Amino acid sequence: MANSRHMVNFAVPRRFITTFKKDCKETFFPDDPFRKFRHDRPLQKFKKTVQYFIPVFEWLPAYNFRLLRYDLLAGITITTLAIPQGISYAKLADLPPIIGLYSSFVPPFIYALFGSSKNLAVGTVAACSLLLHETLGAAVSSKDDPTLYLHLIFTSTFFTGIFQTALGFSRLGILVDFLSHSTITGFMGGTAIIICLQQLKGLLGLKHFTTDTDVVSVIKAVFRYKDECKWQSVVAGLVFLCFLQTARYVRQRKPKLFWVSAISPMAVVVAGCLYAYFGKGEQHGIAIVGDLKKGLNPISIHYLNFDSRYLPVTIRAGVVTGLIAMVEGIAIGRSFAIIKNEQVDGNKEIIAFGFMNIVGSFTSCYLTTGPFSKTAVNVSSGCKSAMSNVVQGACMMLTLLFLAPVFSYTPLVALAAIITSAMLGLINYEEMYHLFQVDKFDFLICMAAFFGVSFKSMDVGLLLSVGLSLLRALLYVARPAPCKLGKLPETSLYRDAEQYPETTSLEGILVIQLGSPIYFANCTYIRERILRYIYEENDASQTEVEHLLLDLSGVSSTDMSGIETFIELGRVLKGKNIKLGIVNPRIEVLEKMTLAKFVNVIGKQAFHLSVEEAIQYCRFTLDDTRKPTAEPSFRNDDAA
Amino acid sequence: MANSRHMVNFAVPRRFITTFKKDCKETFFPDDPFRKFRHDRPLQKFKKTVQYFIPVFEWLPAYNFRLLRYDLLAGITITTLAIPQGISYAKLADLPPIIGLYSSFVPPFIYALFGSSKNLAVGTVAACSLLLHETLGAAVSSKDDPTLYLHLIFTSTFFTGIFQTALGFSRLGILVDFLSHSTITGFMGGTAIIICLQQLKGLLGLKHFTTDTDVVSVIKAVFRYKDECKWQSVVAGLVFLCFLQTARYVRQRKPKLFWVSAISPMAVVVAGCLYAYFGKGEQHGIAIVGDLKKGLNPISIHYLNFDSRYLPVTIRAGVVTGLIAMVEGIAIGRSFAIIKNEQVDGNKEIIAFGFMNIVGSFTSCYLTTGPFSKTAVNVSSGCKSAMSNVVQGACMMLTLLFLAPVFSYTPLVALAAIITSAMLGLINYEEMYHLFQVDKFDFLICMAAFFGVSFKSMDVGLLLSVGLSLLRALLYVARPAPCKLGKLPETSLYRDAEQYPETTSLEGILVIQLGSPIYFANCTYIRERILRYIYEENDASQTEVEHLLLDLSGVSSTDMSGIETFIELGRVLKGKNIKLGIVNPRIEVLEKMTLAKFVNVIGKQAFHLSVEEAIQYCRFTLDDTRKPTAEPSFRNDDAA
Repeated sequence: MANSRHMVNFAVPRRFITTFKKDCKETFFPDDPFRKFRHDRPLQKFKKTVQYFIPVFEWLPAYNFRLLRYDLLAGITITTLAIPQGISYAKLADLPPIIGLYSSFVPPFIYALFGSSKNLAVGTVAACSLLLHETLGAAVSSKDDPTLYLHLIFTSTFFTGIFQTALGFSRLGILVDFLSHSTITGFMGGTAIIICLQQLKGLLGLKHFTTDTDVVSVIKAVFRYKDECKWQSVVAGLVFLCFLQTARYVRQRKPKLFWVSAISPMAVVVAGCLYAYFGKGEQHGIAIVGDLKKGLNPISIHYLNFDSRYLPVTIRAGVVTGLIAMVEGIAIGRSFAIIKNEQVDGNKEIIAFGFMNIVGSFTSCYLTTGPFSKTAVNVSSGCKSAMSNVVQGACMMLTLLFLAPVFSYTPLVALAAIITSAMLGLINYEEMYHLFQVDKFDFLICMAAFFGVSFKSMDVGLLLSVGLSLLRALLYVARPAPCKLGKLPETSLYRDAEQYPETTSLEGILVIQLGSPIYFANCTYIRERILRYIYEENDASQTEVEHLLLDLSGVSSTDMSGIETFIELGRVLKGKNIKLGIVNPRIEVLEKMTLAKFVNVIGKQAFHLSVEEAIQYCRFTLDDTRKPTAEPSFRNDDAA
Repeated sequence: MANSRHMVNFAVPRRFITTFKKDCKETFFPDDPFRKFRHDRPLQKFKKTVQYFIPVFEWLPAYNFRLLRYDLLAGITITTLAIPQGISYAKLADLPPIIGLYSSFVPPFIYALFGSSKNLAVGTVAACSLLLHETLGAAVSSKDDPTLYLHLIFTSTFFTGIFQTALGFSRLGILVDFLSHSTITGFMGGTAIIICLQQLKGLLGLKHFTTDTDVVSVIKAVFRYKDECKWQSVVAGLVFLCFLQTARYVRQRKPKLFWVSAISPMAVVVAGCLYAYFGKGEQHGIAIVGDLKKGLNPISIHYLNFDSRYLPVTIRAGVVTGLIAMVEGIAIGRSFAIIKNEQVDGNKEIIAFGFMNIVGSFTSCYLTTGPFSKTAVNVSSGCKSAMSNVVQGACMMLTLLFLAPVFSYTPLVALAAIITSAMLGLINYEEMYHLFQVDKFDFLICMAAFFGVSFKSMDVGLLLSVGLSLLRALLYVARPAPCKLGKLPETSLYRDAEQYPETTSLEGILVIQLGSPIYFANCTYIRERILRYIYEENDASQTEVEHLLLDLSGVSSTDMSGIETFIELGRVLKGKNIKLGIVNPRIEVLEKMTLAKFVNVIGKQAFHLSVEEAIQYCRFTLDDTRKPTAEPSFRNDDAA
C-alpha cells in the first residue's frame, strides 16, 4: 500500500488573524489587483499605484498616432449614435432634449481618465431613463413643475455617483454578481417591451398618453386616444423603422458593414430634419423636438435639491438606477473584455462610473453608464482605447457649440423609430429559449423579470427576479445534494452510484460524499439524509451497515452548527453500533473539528486521506469470521 | 492502467420531470416519511397513514401500566412547575394570571394527540410572553383596555396556530433551519437578561416601572423609582432566589436529585402563600397575585377580534412569536430525541403546535409551545411518552376546579424570584465562549442577537442576527474556496497543496479543485480566481502552464451562469494556449454541460474520471522534446 506513508495533516489550527486576512482578501480582492507591483521599489510603487487608480496614466504615455486613427473613427461613429439616442432617451425621462446631449459631453472625458475598459462607450441608457421618470415622476409631475423635476433628476444622479463611488471603494462590486445573467436577460427584454410600447405615442402621433408603463395600461391608452392618430406619422414611422431594421439585418449578415447600422439612426434624424424643415412636416401632423439652444453644459451644482420632502425618493431613485446602470456597464465591459482577452476590474469600473455621475450632476448631465448598443458600435468601429470617448466628447462639444439648433427639427416619430429599433434588438429570444432548454429554474427567473417588468413595473420585476435567484441560492445551500459512492470495478475509484450504475456497493460499508459547505442552513437536512441512506442501505442489502464513511473532499467550510451535527451524528451512530469515518477533510473543516474537540471524540484513526485507504482500514476491523465474503473482495481490492 | 476501461458517463440527460420530482422530494421530504409503508396493502396503508398523522394511534395501543407509572410521576412533577410558571409568564405578558393556568390545561391534551415527540412538555414560554406584550402593547395598552388587549392576545394566538399549521402542511419546516444555533443562543441569552431586569419591579416591590424592555430604560426606571423600594420584598426575594439557585446547583452536582430543583418553584410558591396568608404579608409590603377564580377555561372563540385596525399588529405578533415558539419547541424536541436516539419529524411537530394554538385560542389560552425548562424537567423525571402531557392536563384541571383560589395568595416577589432563577439558567456563557474559540463569525452572530435584544428590542436583535447568518450563507456561496492540488509523493492522490506542504506540483499542469455549487453568485469570482492561479503558477515556476484541470467532484450543481463561465473560461484559455480538462463532473453538472453544448465545444476527450487519469492524458499530449524533465517524472508516476 503506497499511501500508508501519508496521514491526514492534523497541524495546529492557523491563527484567527491569518484566516481572517485570507478570507478578507478572497472576499474583496479575489483578483489580487496589487499583485503586479508588490515587490517594486517605493518610487516605482507610487507610480504604479497612481497608474492603478487613474488608468489614463498607464495607457496615455504609450499612445500613438496609429491608435488615434482607429479611435477617431470609432469616436465619430458613436457620436452619430449619441445625438439621436441622447435626445430620445431624454424624452423618455421627460427631460428637455438638450440634457441628453449634455450627458454625452462631460461624462466621456471623466471616464477616459478613470475607466479601465478599452471598449466601453459612455452614454445614457433607455431603461434607467424610464425608471427615473417612473420613480421621480411619482413624487413630482414633470409636466406641472418641470424645473423641480429637473433638479431632482440632477440630485438623484448625484446620489447615484456617491453610491457607486462608495460601493467601488469598499470593494462591494461583489453585489453585481448577485444579479444573474438570467435576471438581466429577462429585465432587458421586459424593459425593451415597455419602452417600445411607450413609443406608440410618437409613432402614432398621439397628443395624450398614459404615464403608466405596464402593457395593460399602455394598450388601454392607445385604444382610448386612437382618434388622435395621424396617418402621416404612422407612415413616416414605418418607413424609418423598416430602414433601421434593414440596416441592422445587413450588419448581422455582413459584419463588415457594421457602419451601415451604426450611422443609420443619424441618417434617419437627418432625413427627418430635412423633411420637417423643407416639407413643413409640422403642418402635416409630424411633431418635432423643438428648442435646442446652442452652448455648452451650464453648471448645475447649485440646483441639487436636498429638501427632506424629496430626499427619500431621490436617494431611492439614485440607488436603484445606479445599481442597474452599473450592472449594465460592468456586464457589457466584461463581455467584450472576455472576447478580446483583456481584464476589467469591476470595482475600478464602478468608481469610474461614480465619478462620472458626480461630475455629471454638477454639469447638467443625468445618469450615464456604458450602454450595450453604443459599446457594441464602439467595438465594431475598431476602438483601441478610452480615447474614443474623448473623441466622442469633443465631437459632442462641437455639436453643442454649433449644430444643436439644427437638431431641433428632428421629428418625434424619427426618435420613436430609433428607440423602437434599438429596443427590439434587446429582446433576446434565443437566449430565453436556451435557458428553457438547459435550466428551467433559470428560465423561471428570467420570465419573472420579463413579465414583472412588462405587466407591473420595473422595480417589481427586478425584485421578483432577484428574490427568486436568492431563493435558489439558499436552496442550493439548504439542500447540498449528497450522494452514495460505489466502487468502479477493477479500479481504486469511488464514484456516485447513481451516475455510474456499474459501481458495486461494499458489504457493511456505506460511503457518502458530501458537497458544498455544511452549516446551520443545511445541517439538519444532512443529518436526516445520512440516516435515511443508512435505512435504505439496510433495507436493500442483507448485511447491516457497520461503517459509515463521509467523504468531505468537497466540503470547503463549515460552522459551529455543522461541527455539532458531526458530533451528534457520531453519537447517534454509536447508538446504532456504526463506526463513523471521515475522509479527506479540507483544512478549514479540520481546524474547526480540532478546536471543537471532535477529533478527540472519534479519534485520529477515524480520519483517512482517501476512500480507498479508509475502506482498507474498515475491512481490517470488520469481523472476518462473521462475513466470509469480505475476504475475497479485500484481496481483489489490494490487487487493483 | 486499470482505469482505462471506465469513462465519464455521458448518458442522455434525465428528463426534466424526473429531476424536478427528485429535487422536490429532497427539498420537502428529505427524511422520506412515507418510506415505511410504501409497499403495504391498501387497508394497512390507510391504518399507517392515520397513525402517521395522528401519532397517538401509534403509541397508545402498545401503552401499558408500567409506562404509565413513569409518566404519572413526570406529569405531576411538571404540573408543580406549570403552576408557578404559568402565573409568572402570564404576568410577564400582562395578562390575568389565570390565563397562564388555562394554557397548561387544554394544549397538553391536543399535543398528546398530534405530537410526535415523547419528551416534550407543553406550556407557555417567557420570551414569547414578553414579545407579545411588547408588540401588542404598542397597539393597545394592557392597562387602559385590558379586555381588548386580552382579545387581541387570543387573536394573535389564533394566527400563530394558522401560521404554524400552514407551514407544517406545506413542509416548510425547512425555515427553522435558517435560525442557527448561534442565533438561538444569543437570542435566549439576551431575552433572559431583559426578562431578569423586568423582575426588578417585583423583587424590589416597586409600584411604577417602565414598559420598555431594553437595559438602558430599565436601569433608568429603577433609579427613578428607587424610593418605592420595599426592604421586606427585597429580603424575601433574595431568600427565595438563594433557595432556587441552591436547588439548581444541587441538581447540577447530583443529577439524581433533579426533583429538588423541579419542585423548588412550587415550594417557593407554597411558602410565599403561607407567609402572605398567615403572616399578613400584604400589610408588610408584599404584594400578591390576587383574584384567581375556580373553574375551567371559558370558551373564547367569540372574542377573536378581526378588526382591520388591529389586524396588522395581531398577524405580525402571531407570526413572529409563532416562529420563535416553533424554533424553541423543535430545537428542544430534537435535542432530546438525539440523546435518546429517537426521530422527531419537524413538520409534524409544527402541525401539532399549530393545532394546539388554534384550539388554545378558542379556549382562553395564549401561545404555548415546548419550553426548554419544562421539557428538561419532564425528561429527567423519566417521562416515557406524550402521556405525561395528559397527566399534566389532568392535574391542571383538578387545580383549576379546586385549588386555584389558594394560589391567589402567591406573592409577586416569589414569582419574580422564580422567573429570575429560570432565566439565569438560560444565559449559556460556556456555549458563547465555545463559539468564540471555534468560530468567530458564529460568535458575532450570537453577540448580535444578544446585544440587539438586550439594548434595543427582541425583533431587532433577532433580525440582526438572522441577517448576519444569511449574509454569511451568501458569502459562503459567493466565495467557494477553490484550492490548488498537488501530488502526494509515491501515491496517486492529489490533495490541497496548502494543507499538505509535502505535495509536489506538476510541470506545465495546474490542477484546481472547485467546491460547492457554481452559479451566478460566484461564477465571476471563480473565473477571476482561476486566472489568478494561472498567473501565480507562471510567476512561481519556469515552465508556462499548458494544461488546466478542474476537479469538479465537489460541485454538486450549477446553473446557466455557471455553464457560461466554463464556456468563457475555455475561450480565454484557448487565447492563452492552455488546454482545459474537466475531472469527474457530477451528474447534474454534466447534464447541463451536455445540454449547453459545452461538451461538444471542448470535446469528450477533455473529460476525465480521475485526476490521475487526466494527468496521464495531459503528459501524453505535452511536447516531450521541449520538456526533457517531463519524461522521468512521467515514468515515476506510472510506477506508483
